[in-house]
Parts: sequence; C-alpha cells; structure tokens
Amino acid sequence: MNPSTPAGPTGIVLLNLGGPKTLDDVGPFLEALFQDREIIQLPFQKWLGPFIARRRTPKVQQLYQAIGGGSPILHWTELQGRGMVERLDRLSPETAPHKFYVAFRYITPTSEEALLQMKADGVERAVAFTQYQQFSCATTGSSLNELWRAAGRLGLARHFRWSVIDRWPTHPAFIRAMAESVRKGLELFPPEERDQVLLLFSAHSLPLSVINRGDPYPQEVGASVHEVLKAGGFPNPYLLSYQSEVGPVRWLGPSTETVIRNLGAKGIRNVLVVGIAFTSDHIETLSEIDREYGHLAKEVGIERFHRAPAFNDDPLFLDALAQIVLDHLRSGRACSNQYGFRCPGCTNPECRNILNPIAPYLRTPLSAR
Amino acid sequence: MNPSTPAGPTGIVLLNLGGPKTLDDVGPFLEALFQDREIIQLPFQKWLGPFIARRRTPKVQQLYQAIGGGSPILHWTELQGRGMVERLDRLSPETAPHKFYVAFRYITPTSEEALLQMKADGVERAVAFTQYQQFSCATTGSSLNELWRAAGRLGLARHFRWSVIDRWPTHPAFIRAMAESVRKGLELFPPEERDQVLLLFSAHSLPLSVINRGDPYPQEVGASVHEVLKAGGFPNPYLLSYQSEVGPVRWLGPSTETVIRNLGAKGIRNVLVVGIAFTSDHIETLSEIDREYGHLAKEVGIERFHRAPAFNDDPLFLDALAQIVLDHLRSGRACSNQYGFRCPGCTNPECRNILNPIAPYLRTPLSAR
Repeated sequence: MNPSTPAGPTGIVLLNLGGPKTLDDVGPFLEALFQDREIIQLPFQKWLGPFIARRRTPKVQQLYQAIGGGSPILHWTELQGRGMVERLDRLSPETAPHKFYVAFRYITPTSEEALLQMKADGVERAVAFTQYQQFSCATTGSSLNELWRAAGRLGLARHFRWSVIDRWPTHPAFIRAMAESVRKGLELFPPEERDQVLLLFSAHSLPLSVINRGDPYPQEVGASVHEVLKAGGFPNPYLLSYQSEVGPVRWLGPSTETVIRNLGAKGIRNVLVVGIAFTSDHIETLSEIDREYGHLAKEVGIERFHRAPAFNDDPLFLDALAQIVLDHLRSGRACSNQYGFRCPGCTNPECRNILNPIAPYLRTPLSAR
Repeated sequence: MNPSTPAGPTGIVLLNLGGPKTLDDVGPFLEALFQDREIIQLPFQKWLGPFIARRRTPKVQQLYQAIGGGSPILHWTELQGRGMVERLDRLSPETAPHKFYVAFRYITPTSEEALLQMKADGVERAVAFTQYQQFSCATTGSSLNELWRAAGRLGLARHFRWSVIDRWPTHPAFIRAMAESVRKGLELFPPEERDQVLLLFSAHSLPLSVINRGDPYPQEVGASVHEVLKAGGFPNPYLLSYQSEVGPVRWLGPSTETVIRNLGAKGIRNVLVVGIAFTSDHIETLSEIDREYGHLAKEVGIERFHRAPAFNDDPLFLDALAQIVLDHLRSGRACSNQYGFRCPGCTNPECRNILNPIAPYLRTPLSAR
C-alpha cells in the first residue's frame, strides 16, 4: 500500500447554514445567527443581535409552521450526501470508502458533532466541501472558521489532514444541473409564452459592508448566471437580484422583492425565479419565494409566477456533487487559488485558514505592518 | 440587386462618453455631465450639478494637463473605427462600404454631427454600436437616448433604419483580446512572481441608485471577468473592484482606491490592474490608474504596480470590433434580447427605445397601470 494513502474512509464535510428543525429551535437559531459577526456586523451587537432575534422569532416561527413546522435542509443535505458518496465509491475506488458529514451553523448537526463522528469512523483525510456555490466570507468563510475552531476546542487540530472545496460557481456539472432546472421551470409556462418569460435569478443578499471589504460573491454569482444562460441557450430576458435582507444595515441590491413589485407595475406577465445560490429547498425558497413573493406577484398582476425547482435529490445534482469532489481529490490541492487571498478589507485573523492542510497554499497575511 | 439591400454605405455609430479635447473644454464637459440625470441623479441637480462641476474643473484641468493637455479618446476611437471598417469591407462585401461615425456625449463630435455626416454620406442603414462592453442605462442607455433625441431634433427620425449593438460583455473576440492584454501585462512582472500577481479587474463604478433600479452592469462585468480568466487560464488570485466614484451619492463597491490601500497594508507586492470596462486610454486609465493609484500603490508598499495595456489600436481588438458588427449584421436582429427589457425600477419613458428599427423587438412598457 502506498504509504501516503490515508487510513480509513475519506471524510467529506458538507458545510451549510442549516435551519431550525422544529419551531422551538427558531429562537436559539436566530439568536446565534444575529450574534455572529462573521455574518453580519451590527452596532452594539451583543445587545442588538438578541433583540432583533427575539423580535423576529414569532414571525419566523409562523413561516416555518406554514412550510411544515421546520426546515427540510437536513433532510435534503443527507440525501445529497448519500447520493454523492455512493457515486464517489464507484468513481474513485482509490479514495473509497467515502463518508459524508453535515456541519451546520447554530443548529445540530454542528461542526463538533461532525468532527467527533469522523474521529469515531477512523477518518484521517478530510475534505471541507462548502454547499454554497459562490464564495462569501459571510457564508463559506464563516463555516470554515467555525470548523477549525471546533477542531481546536475538541483537541483535534492535528487529527485530520484537510483540503477545502471553497467554491464552485461555474463548475460545468453544477451549471448543467442548473440549466436543466431552468428548463424544467420554463415548462411550467404555456409554450407560446415560454421564450418571453423573465428569468429572475435570485441570490441571497449580503450587507454592503461585506461587499466593500472586497468579498468575491457578486462577481461569482454574475459568472454563474452567465454560464447557466450559455449552457441552456435560453433566449429569455433575465435579471439578477438579491433577496432576504434583514436587520438595520444596507444590503446589496436590487432587492428581489422590489424587483417583483416593479415588474408587475410594468405589466410583465411571466416570471420564473431561479435560486442561483441555493442547492435545496428551505425557508428562502418555500416560504420567501413561493409564498411571500408568490403572493406579492399575484397582487401586482404577474399572471404566472413560478420557481425553477431546487436541486434537492435531483440525480444531475448528485452527479455534480460527486464530480466536484472527484476533480478536487485528483487535483491534490488544498484549496482554490482564490481561497488564500484575503479580502483586501479583512480584519479577521481567522479568515482563509486551513487547519493541517494536505498541501501548502499561499495565504495573504492579515496585515504586513 | 435585392430590393431590401439598403442604398449607400452601412453607417456604424460608435457611442462613447468622450472627453475634453483641450483644457478649455473641461468646464463645459463637466457641467453637461453633472446635469445629465440619465448618468447621475443629484438633489437640486440644476444647481448642484454646475456647482460640483465648477468646483472640480481646476483639479480636473490639472489632471488633463498631466496627460498631455486633453483626452486621447477621439484619437483612439477614430483609429479603432478605421480598423473596424477596413476589416468589415473585406469580411462583408455585401454590406460594404462601411463607414464609421463617432458620437460622444457633452463634447464634439456629438450625435448631431454624426447624424448630419451620415445623411451627407447617403447612409440609410445604420448600426448604433456602443463602445461600452457591459450595458448600463447610465452609459449605453444614455448615449442611445441622446442619439434618438438628436435625430428627432434634426428632423431625421425616419431617415435611417436602425439596429443596435447594445452590449458585448462576453463576445469571444473581445474576451480573446482582453486575455491577451492581461498576458502582456503579466509579462511586466518577473517570471518567478508572475503567477502570484494579483489581477485587479477595475470597472467604472455606478451610483447604488442605478444598481437598485435593476441595472444589468455588475452581472455583466462579473461575466466578463469570468470569461477572461477562463480564456487566459490564469492561475492568479483576482478581484473585481469599481473606480471613479464622484459626487455626493453612494456608489457600488468595493472601491479600487480603498482596495489598493488595503492590499498594500496586507503586504501584497505585485498588482496588475485590468480595465475590464475600458476600450482605450483616457483619464480613467492614464491619470486615475497610472498616476493616482500608481502613486498610492508605491506609498502603501506595493512594489510592482502595472496596468494591462488598453486596447487602443491593438489589431486583436480591431478584429473584435469587426467581428462583433459582422455577427450583428448577419443576425438580422434589431438588438439583443435584453435591450428591450427595461430595468424594473425604470421611470424614464425614453429608455430602451430604437428609432425606426430594422426589425420588431419586444420593449417593456414603462408602466402598465
């Protein structure tokens, strides 16, 4: 056996935000979210964060009630992980067996739980695989920082050898799956209207303070949109907008909600929303897009308002997940060329780190002087 | 002869902002610019626009003084136009002869001058060809609106049959030329440092009020960056930032100037600026990037700070211009699928129009109710 071949299974940690599983989880989830300065920076955060969280909890509980009493994100992430490792075992016997672990923020399963299970399973070689296609320090960055902190807290800082799949905004397999989802969405419209349907690509927004630090997210979302249009050859008009702004800070626009309102006023009759930065259904798709925006669309006179289906357990997307990991494992690299390059305005010493990496990578120092 | 073949030459109108040719032109140019509500919307614009213009004039005159006493943009646009029509005459004898006309805003040659010369030359079939690769209502939109207004003022509203090249952010010939310019820029760095040079793609910024209307510019700039990186296969870290903010409104970030300052503080030693939204040298490249940011870069400790050469009379770019027009003429279309789709927040009744178009196109009404 090659001495560099790791013992035990290859562990793949799926990083995502997660969501409250039950209505009782909503309050603690929001409190943790609004106190995380890697996601959102508020004045007097220790006080204002919990205040905003508590004020929003009853409303958000109602929203979760309406979509079945909790977030389906764990359900879908587990199906995706299972489909991915089955494919990887076939595609890459040399790194098999592959096992997946879910690491959410602010809700179980946490990074700690994932790491402890990996240790119990005998994993040494680990891949941190972000489930956010486009990189932002507020999403992938925050999840990775928490993963390394959790390993430290558990005394496992040297236990695993890590590499990171830190972004995949234009991976051809992802683009193929997304173009197919748009195609399926367009089939919901009458054939004679189909080519005129407005494709409204909607991504989660970010505070402008994050954008102004030099976060790569908007450029990468723009690239995803471009590649999906090219792959699908769609003749439709299209627009990129940003959703889910919350709290007393300014966010990147245009806002999806305002856009929908204005589209109605302009007499646009057919709109297909495409969640270009989501991989499965959760509150932002089932509640915000389908219910809230769907209701608004009807109100402002949009006749047909649909959403391209989220990937969930779409086999094309499971193929994509496996292919992305396979390409990464074969590259032998610790991360993308972009990962080590800190946002120019970064002041977070934890950012852009990899714990015990499988290969060297260049990381910008926090400050040279 | 095919009866649908137009009489006279094919006229190609190159639309751009232009710049003051002499120091005396600076004041009137800035006054006109700051009063144009299609470019920037200020409170009390009739008063505040001229006030800002007058306050800035002496400083801007100094900047033009330092780059030779005026803007070279007309010089380059004419060389580009000449190279383009020579190529088109060879590539497309069926639409020859081709003649080009320059239409700037706020400075001669204006849209009126271009249109009068076209009439004198016997042009009937005309193409309005934006020299801004990525579409914004503040740039291409404003130039087109002015072109149609000028035709109206001259009583030439029915004289020409128009089509519009309204954007070309990812046209393969443009991308090829831009990737080559990046390659040339990288050659300015020592070979052993070349792969670590930060590629700082810099585009002209836009007021957030324009972005929030639903302007397509940031998405298209993001797509250009992505395609250039892909075409060139550059392993370098990169970032997209926005430059040239001015006046008392909020602009899209991150700001190129702030980014350079922060890169210096982080110990980044090699930076190549790539003007991803510029086609020739003018004040934004020669003065702002080369002199102002160049000086700043030295001050903050960036050792090597270069700029990928602007296209100017680069034959690869002249090829691209000709190819873009050729593809457009062969398409038989009046404009792109996107052009007729008004920004959702648009309140300008003139926007997204084509005067006397060669073919029908779908245009969103301003307001349905």
